[in-house]
Amino acid sequence: MTNHPVPQSPSIIGQRVPKMDAMDKATGRIEYGHDVRLPGMLVGKILYANVPHARIVSIDTSRAKKIAGVKAVLTAQDTPRIKFGFGKDNLPLKDKVLSRRDEVAAVAAVDEDAAYEALALIRVEYEPLLPVFDAFDALEPGAPRVHESRPSNLFDQYDYAHGDGARGLDTADVVVEDEFEIGWATYAALEPTTCMAQWDTQGRLTIWSPTQIPFLLQRDLSEALGISGRDVRVLQPAIGGSFGRGLDVYPIEPICALLAKAAQRPVRIIFSRDEEFLAVATRQPVKARVRSGAKRDGTLWARDFHLTLDAGPYISWGALEPLVMMEAVASLYRVPHARFVADVVYTNNLVSGAVRGYGNPQGTFFVESSMEHLARELGMDSVEFRLKNANRPNEETPQGLKITSCGLRECLMEAAERIGWGNPTSNFQLPTSKLRRGIGIAATLNVGGGARIYKSDGCGATVKVDDFGRVTLVTGSTEIGQGSETALAQITAEALGVRVEDVSVVNNDTNIKPWDVGTHASRTTFIAGKAVWIAAKKVQAQILEKAGEMLGAPVESLEMRDRMIRAKNDAAKAIAYDRVVRAMHYREGGVVLSADGWYDPPTQIVNKETWKGNISAAYGFGAQAAEVEVDLETGKVRVLKIVAAHDVGKAINPMAVEGQIEGGVTMGLGFALSEALQVQDGRILNPTLLDYRVPTALDVPKIETVIVETHDPEGPFGAKGVGEQPVNPTAAAIANAVFDAIGVRVTSLPLTGEKILRALKEQNPKTE
Amino acid sequence: MTNHPVPQSPSIIGQRVPKMDAMDKATGRIEYGHDVRLPGMLVGKILYANVPHARIVSIDTSRAKKIAGVKAVLTAQDTPRIKFGFGKDNLPLKDKVLSRRDEVAAVAAVDEDAAYEALALIRVEYEPLLPVFDAFDALEPGAPRVHESRPSNLFDQYDYAHGDGARGLDTADVVVEDEFEIGWATYAALEPTTCMAQWDTQGRLTIWSPTQIPFLLQRDLSEALGISGRDVRVLQPAIGGSFGRGLDVYPIEPICALLAKAAQRPVRIIFSRDEEFLAVATRQPVKARVRSGAKRDGTLWARDFHLTLDAGPYISWGALEPLVMMEAVASLYRVPHARFVADVVYTNNLVSGAVRGYGNPQGTFFVESSMEHLARELGMDSVEFRLKNANRPNEETPQGLKITSCGLRECLMEAAERIGWGNPTSNFQLPTSKLRRGIGIAATLNVGGGARIYKSDGCGATVKVDDFGRVTLVTGSTEIGQGSETALAQITAEALGVRVEDVSVVNNDTNIKPWDVGTHASRTTFIAGKAVWIAAKKVQAQILEKAGEMLGAPVESLEMRDRMIRAKNDAAKAIAYDRVVRAMHYREGGVVLSADGWYDPPTQIVNKETWKGNISAAYGFGAQAAEVEVDLETGKVRVLKIVAAHDVGKAINPMAVEGQIEGGVTMGLGFALSEALQVQDGRILNPTLLDYRVPTALDVPKIETVIVETHDPEGPFGAKGVGEQPVNPTAAAIANAVFDAIGVRVTSLPLTGEKILRALKEQNPKTE
Repeated sequence: MTNHPVPQSPSIIGQRVPKMDAMDKATGRIEYGHDVRLPGMLVGKILYANVPHARIVSIDTSRAKKIAGVKAVLTAQDTPRIKFGFGKDNLPLKDKVLSRRDEVAAVAAVDEDAAYEALALIRVEYEPLLPVFDAFDALEPGAPRVHESRPSNLFDQYDYAHGDGARGLDTADVVVEDEFEIGWATYAALEPTTCMAQWDTQGRLTIWSPTQIPFLLQRDLSEALGISGRDVRVLQPAIGGSFGRGLDVYPIEPICALLAKAAQRPVRIIFSRDEEFLAVATRQPVKARVRSGAKRDGTLWARDFHLTLDAGPYISWGALEPLVMMEAVASLYRVPHARFVADVVYTNNLVSGAVRGYGNPQGTFFVESSMEHLARELGMDSVEFRLKNANRPNEETPQGLKITSCGLRECLMEAAERIGWGNPTSNFQLPTSKLRRGIGIAATLNVGGGARIYKSDGCGATVKVDDFGRVTLVTGSTEIGQGSETALAQITAEALGVRVEDVSVVNNDTNIKPWDVGTHASRTTFIAGKAVWIAAKKVQAQILEKAGEMLGAPVESLEMRDRMIRAKNDAAKAIAYDRVVRAMHYREGGVVLSADGWYDPPTQIVNKETWKGNISAAYGFGAQAAEVEVDLETGKVRVLKIVAAHDVGKAINPMAVEGQIEGGVTMGLGFALSEALQVQDGRILNPTLLDYRVPTALDVPKIETVIVETHDPEGPFGAKGVGEQPVNPTAAAIANAVFDAIGVRVTSLPLTGEKILRALKEQNPKTE
Repeated sequence: MTNHPVPQSPSIIGQRVPKMDAMDKATGRIEYGHDVRLPGMLVGKILYANVPHARIVSIDTSRAKKIAGVKAVLTAQDTPRIKFGFGKDNLPLKDKVLSRRDEVAAVAAVDEDAAYEALALIRVEYEPLLPVFDAFDALEPGAPRVHESRPSNLFDQYDYAHGDGARGLDTADVVVEDEFEIGWATYAALEPTTCMAQWDTQGRLTIWSPTQIPFLLQRDLSEALGISGRDVRVLQPAIGGSFGRGLDVYPIEPICALLAKAAQRPVRIIFSRDEEFLAVATRQPVKARVRSGAKRDGTLWARDFHLTLDAGPYISWGALEPLVMMEAVASLYRVPHARFVADVVYTNNLVSGAVRGYGNPQGTFFVESSMEHLARELGMDSVEFRLKNANRPNEETPQGLKITSCGLRECLMEAAERIGWGNPTSNFQLPTSKLRRGIGIAATLNVGGGARIYKSDGCGATVKVDDFGRVTLVTGSTEIGQGSETALAQITAEALGVRVEDVSVVNNDTNIKPWDVGTHASRTTFIAGKAVWIAAKKVQAQILEKAGEMLGAPVESLEMRDRMIRAKNDAAKAIAYDRVVRAMHYREGGVVLSADGWYDPPTQIVNKETWKGNISAAYGFGAQAAEVEVDLETGKVRVLKIVAAHDVGKAINPMAVEGQIEGGVTMGLGFALSEALQVQDGRILNPTLLDYRVPTALDVPKIETVIVETHDPEGPFGAKGVGEQPVNPTAAAIANAVFDAIGVRVTSLPLTGEKILRALKEQNPKTE
């Protein structure tokens, strides 16, 4: 027999693959929480306090209970009084009001009309208490205490230092100082929050939730309800946007469960758009006092950052955001001395939480604005300054981050080159024009190999192959739109030599899927991908062994591609992989194919004393450059172009990576220019999508994405996470470009026309 | 430290456990196929030919298509012409009609009214062909051929012999001869057949079906549609009765799929009650000529059985029923010589299929009626005759069945004793009474360790344990009401020392569950139970290893009971099992618990030449005795009591075993006395539950169940299957009791008053 050379078909890894759910989303066939219907389902509605701080003197629900169709009316006295949430300071329904969004009563009724009518008939008598709306005020002695049981309004303080800490600035040649302020922003997910709860006849609860953390929800919700975690099953409908919204248990879940229990019927709560603005968490508002110093030669020398975060009345996982802000301060660029202090403070404002980037957009804005300031003070090109101090591969930062792959320099150079850095014509305007153009740049460091903020950062996977060649991947991980299920299907398909469409991904039922800590920290493709690869390789090994026997070829000579197994050096030796699978089943001592994989990265929980430790198994880097045009008459900033260059290790699905980058940039654009909740005395003044200005398609500039591949040694196929890093540097790059355009630094986000005009006027009072 | 003796808590195996779905069924919360709703779902309806044999000259659907709300109208020309089904002789929609129930067109519409209106407007022109309604006629030369492409109407012939075959009768001392006839009966499941089909945007089909054979349906339906099995996913809603109905792919499934494809919307078909009578299969009608012989001393010597089965126009898995009838003839009791011939014949009647017992109720009726006849001819007590010839443990029958455990003698003795066998007063009546009492007995042999009628008789299982101690069992097997999911949960709970309510059983999605050949042949608890045990033991071993380490006790000393792990000889060494599970997860190199199990029994496919082979890994036995009262004026038979003694190996859940026995006896009672489809020229005359007489609660006599435990060496915990055997001997026992009561043998089922009066009159023409 002649040996025929076997052509190598291209690998599935690195191919542009449309997201598996794209068609269903585009055609409206996908089932969101709103589409889940159960027989006998009731509508649940919540009554909010709408006073910022008060004792509840009495609640009269008697009239509400008489409304036809009302099946349950609950107040605090009907609910377990178990404190829940990250800060163990929240209750489903409150007996004391700590913010306007506090839930004081809830009803379940056969339809929305009856539910709203009942809400309107609940009479609550409040005894007002003095509120506190400013985090600095809240830290003053004698300030009203948000939680009476706590000694002060300071929930937690992060105090980190390396090198000489703040004293490092004493030995710097140039020091700059700034104050920054970032207010409230919201997720503005297109899908408002939903929850469905049903108790079975054995007293077990099933909850349908667009959560990002099904297993932590299982735990946290069971604790809030005072039942065993064994008796909570979490089902995840398709998720129409989350961005961190689903990282916590919020009162909606226990309220929904308690209504369902009281009514003995399934209850579904769907937030109205107002409610979505009011009752979900916000991005952590932060005020920062920042100093950075450098040596004359452009060596970054020291940083001293003091941050104050307004957590609102209940602490969420977002309270951990200083951990990430700290990474930007202590580890983005090589900096020998750093101090970082962050106070997380209770107030009677909105509840703040974790939003995509998890504090990194805020931290990066501070760091990269300060870097720009410092470069100007040094009289140094700011790209050159950044390149000189950029992180490099295989270095451990003083904070303990073990950087393996690192493409920061490449990203900076790509972004700079493609925005036209150093090209003097780009910034030229006729002196008579009221328009000024500028360019700016900013970089980011983001965890890209998980983030151990919980005891387990692991994820499990099971791969099975049926007789027909259908591959099922059961993954612990959660798809929230990031496209990781497609990447996981690609990894499975790559291992087994099948097509992506041959893989079904099962990922939405805690009864079925193995543990995963949840979708956060850009971890899914990295962590879940490793677990999938481990499971799929076990299945692969079994198939190849049998195929070798059937083909009469050594296992090492075989490759699996496009549903076939072939001897690499002999094209005549080929067999369809599903025939091999059937042959393994239909024989004496046969088997059906299934294998498990589990991956928990070799990382550390950050030490709570030193705040050091290698939290992630890999770090992603990126740089974005923006070109803007500022209208001197209106202050309006128009972004003309953004170049986004990101080190993603290996792009398993470049199309999805581009989607993440474009989505991140767009979110960063809103963060930079328009998205702000107007909050006055704890009340949101603009709770509509018309007034809360998410960028529309017309607002989004040309985004040039550059994928920098560094092939991480630990990541699956060299991949690193990319979910969050594209949102981090956008605002800083735009702010730096505005500085470049008009010579004025606006230190508060968003960069509204009003703020820019005010800054211009301060700079040159005669302009007007 | 003192060693404290540890009390042994009782094992979960052998406990009376309510079925896991009992409460949901009782409260109406369970979701049957009727409860499945999808957005945009259409109603599908089928047009039946209602002529028994005809060519279709033309079909005009033009008016039907114009009805508002009609989204698809299909005829044969719109469908793939791929023959499907066990006999590869069926089509979704027909271009030639072979029976009145033939599907000739189908519509999908937004509601039932529009669908029915459209059906009514479809005009079909038929050219009638000569039909054949009798299986003997169909075998005559020159008979109308049902399938033109086949040389004759004989689909298949089973021809089996052992010993001297029929010639064995020549050396018998006593020979009896009988003719029997059993007509059509139906499943009469409370839930009519349903089907829902939906195609996804990638061209993959999801089908919701109350099937018993999800993986074979996946294969068969994909073949019928001309697509890959990879692209068919089968979901099984809760099943409200099946009894063999769900063993085949029938036209409803491809029709539903084709309608959904044409309409590009999900389509649901729910059979009306009429349709349920017309379009599902029936029990195989059989005519039998039977001879049995014995030696003078009561040694059973030889049997010669000739059976003719009316298969109707399309061959189902029911066509394999002679395999089982043959087991009753060749292997129930020790019989040195036997011949068995069965012809499976095409006619233009109803389609016949497999019903609980799979031919065994028919075969057992023939065998046990003949045994009774023979005992009378021998002048021997028929229990004594049976005991003398009963099967014994650890024997191989001439047919090749390897009997391991065998409680036939115990069952016969229990049944006889409890019915009052040999007590002369039981049969006494005043001569003036028009009521006559009698007792009768019959036994059965049934596969109890699977039945290899397909290449694989295996089943897979996965057991996972979450951090909260919730155990999930994913089993390939299918729950059709038999209660096996509860038995499987007990086996899992036993292995892991948890409670049954801690186990969630996942068993209804081919995307998730591993292969299983399906629910048939009473195989689930045996086969799936073994697989579950294998998987659960792997998990157990992992937990015990860690627990030993945590408790400082050798693994062998540990036991798992009631959510705790204890050292047997030291009560102080105890730990909650979920704590151990968490400790395994939350550590360096941690794991989450999951393991697979697979079991395919060591059995043989019956040899197609000799019809011999050990088809099952275990055999169940049973005996039932009936006491009846016959009204000489009306012929009506009232059953006063039934004793049902069954060898089930080990009863894992005695409550469920009793349920199976009581249900089987009740079904056997209907088979014996009342259930018959009145069929004339291929038309059902009594297609309503009022006229088709399933026993009601008032018709069911006292049933005394006796569980005989023999502890099978291969079965899980010694268990054998029990799903079918209780239905097998009931009719024979009742017929034998009627014979005892009135001295007349009625050889046709059901034993209607009309038949009994006729028989009485033939016996004594002067009676009237």
